[in-house]
Amino acid sequence: MLKHNTYFDGRVQSVGFERNGLKATVGVIEPGEYHFGTGAAERMTVTSGQLKVKQAGGNDWVTYPQGTSFEVAANSGFDVQAVGGPAAYLCEFLG
Amino acid sequence: MLKHNTYFDGRVQSVGFERNGLKATVGVIEPGEYHFGTGAAERMTVTSGQLKVKQAGGNDWVTYPQGTSFEVAANSGFDVQAVGGPAAYLCEFLG
Repeated sequence: MLKHNTYFDGRVQSVGFERNGLKATVGVIEPGEYHFGTGAAERMTVTSGQLKVKQAGGNDWVTYPQGTSFEVAANSGFDVQAVGGPAAYLCEFLG
Repeated sequence: MLKHNTYFDGRVQSVGFERNGLKATVGVIEPGEYHFGTGAAERMTVTSGQLKVKQAGGNDWVTYPQGTSFEVAANSGFDVQAVGGPAAYLCEFLG
């Protein structure tokens, strides 16, 4: 079953799915700054546009263009900004 | 504004967005076979899983694994199957 998720008044939306026992979502982040907490660890791959990310406990904003990925530890979180327009991503839950 | 799209009783869902004047969607296709018509030409990139595709007027099913893309002409269409579980994609409208 596919599941539509919407956050921050619809400014971040995704579709959740599962394959081979692993959960994942594909979604879009509109320009703006948002914080996401994590339960399981996640791998975020930017599939369109560009994201700027600051990991929990970190000070630096790191830019991830299309085709690049970053991982977020379990029980942690990250601040994220979509830069230059909406950005699309694949989020894979790692455990 | 992001837009949630749902087709075939929710077995195909996507989130639509626009950046730099180009429309795009990210979405998920559940196992099964579906037909999509095109208005504008489209580039479909498989971001997770695998799609089998037969273009309108074609006889062959071609397999596209994660990381590969195919294009569909304007005012045409394609049959598509998700293979081995749901598959996720980025669809870019080319004009």
